[in-house]
Amino acid sequence: MTKVYYECMDDDMVSKDHIQTAFNFRHAAKRFDGTKKIPDSEFELLLEVARLSPSSFGLEPWNIIVVNDDSFRKELLPWCWGAQGQLPTASHFVIFTAKTSAAMLPDAPYAKHALQTVRGLSETEAGEYVAFYKKWLTEDYGRLEAPQLLHEWAARQAYIALGNMMTVAAMRGIDSCAIEGFKIEKVSQLLEARQCIVPKQDLPVVMLALGYRIDPPKPKARRVLNQIVKEV
Amino acid sequence: MTKVYYECMDDDMVSKDHIQTAFNFRHAAKRFDGTKKIPDSEFELLLEVARLSPSSFGLEPWNIIVVNDDSFRKELLPWCWGAQGQLPTASHFVIFTAKTSAAMLPDAPYAKHALQTVRGLSETEAGEYVAFYKKWLTEDYGRLEAPQLLHEWAARQAYIALGNMMTVAAMRGIDSCAIEGFKIEKVSQLLEARQCIVPKQDLPVVMLALGYRIDPPKPKARRVLNQIVKEV
Repeated sequence: MTKVYYECMDDDMVSKDHIQTAFNFRHAAKRFDGTKKIPDSEFELLLEVARLSPSSFGLEPWNIIVVNDDSFRKELLPWCWGAQGQLPTASHFVIFTAKTSAAMLPDAPYAKHALQTVRGLSETEAGEYVAFYKKWLTEDYGRLEAPQLLHEWAARQAYIALGNMMTVAAMRGIDSCAIEGFKIEKVSQLLEARQCIVPKQDLPVVMLALGYRIDPPKPKARRVLNQIVKEV
Repeated sequence: MTKVYYECMDDDMVSKDHIQTAFNFRHAAKRFDGTKKIPDSEFELLLEVARLSPSSFGLEPWNIIVVNDDSFRKELLPWCWGAQGQLPTASHFVIFTAKTSAAMLPDAPYAKHALQTVRGLSETEAGEYVAFYKKWLTEDYGRLEAPQLLHEWAARQAYIALGNMMTVAAMRGIDSCAIEGFKIEKVSQLLEARQCIVPKQDLPVVMLALGYRIDPPKPKARRVLNQIVKEV
């Protein structure tokens, strides 16, 4: 599916009702029906919407680890207080990693490599783009001031993909729960031991449990719109 | 619309084709057709999906500023190199702000206040939850180590809402562009002058231009799936 629309036709649109239903369907599922498995074709769609999610400068500074192995889920469990109900019951369990600050430095190979291999820029073009990236990081965005900030910026991009996966899951009747409640250092060590990451390059930032609910959700609590939005 | 489904019915689901079409429709629009305005009901839907987006601990640590005023857009222009084509032509122009680290400290009033007013917790419950929040920030997430990290964490949550707005916009045939290319300090000063933010509490993190495309998009460049996903 690579159809690109110049104008969007009515038939291509998703109805407002369907969108609102999905956003109300989604909630943070604390455990899942362990007997129900997300079909492969549905999970592939979720990976595909992550893949097509936008990222700043198109650098796609994140990765996804899919934890299928039950024994690895058990290893993770003591270090993931926020996933106690989800790790044992989720149909699919995903860990997002984001590039470290060291990897995201403009002089590190990642940015230039990504621009050449993914965006197809020539070496000269990629070099110019990286120079621009460096200027932006320094002058506008203040990202080179503190060592953690480039990793944080990479993490922000991962959250766009995370949000899209949760939304599209809901649109397909699949429940989810984003999880930040884990010991980053311990989980990193476990991922390294399984050769899923090189911690100098990538670190876990958020997890996503996916499956089918077994409990009714709590009523949604949100600010009202005028607490969120200002107009100028 | 507050319908909450315990089980999702087929009729409630969005088709895979519609989802894939929307993700292929979306691109970073560099300028828009200045003659086309997003209808109010559509823009309200976009704000609603931001509002219903999840956030860590349910703290919703971000806000949206809608820049309608042309004179304010002109004031912003010199400080937003990444929005040169979008600021003058976008139907709607949004600035996401995220809570500062000072505002997000567990001992600052925001967290407790949000838990009481939004989630309806009692003062005792909110106090206990904040104690838990503090423990997590300190022991697991390492968020109190450096002064910027709580603001960054708030920004991550904003990016979930940002992603959802872009995705739903595409599902409604609306184009968008997320923009990080601006001078944070200058834009903060301008927002403060218009009484949109108190910089000790909220700072701009990303902008979102919305409207209708006027140029055909470039072909999408993305990693292939096996560069993104590892299984364990």
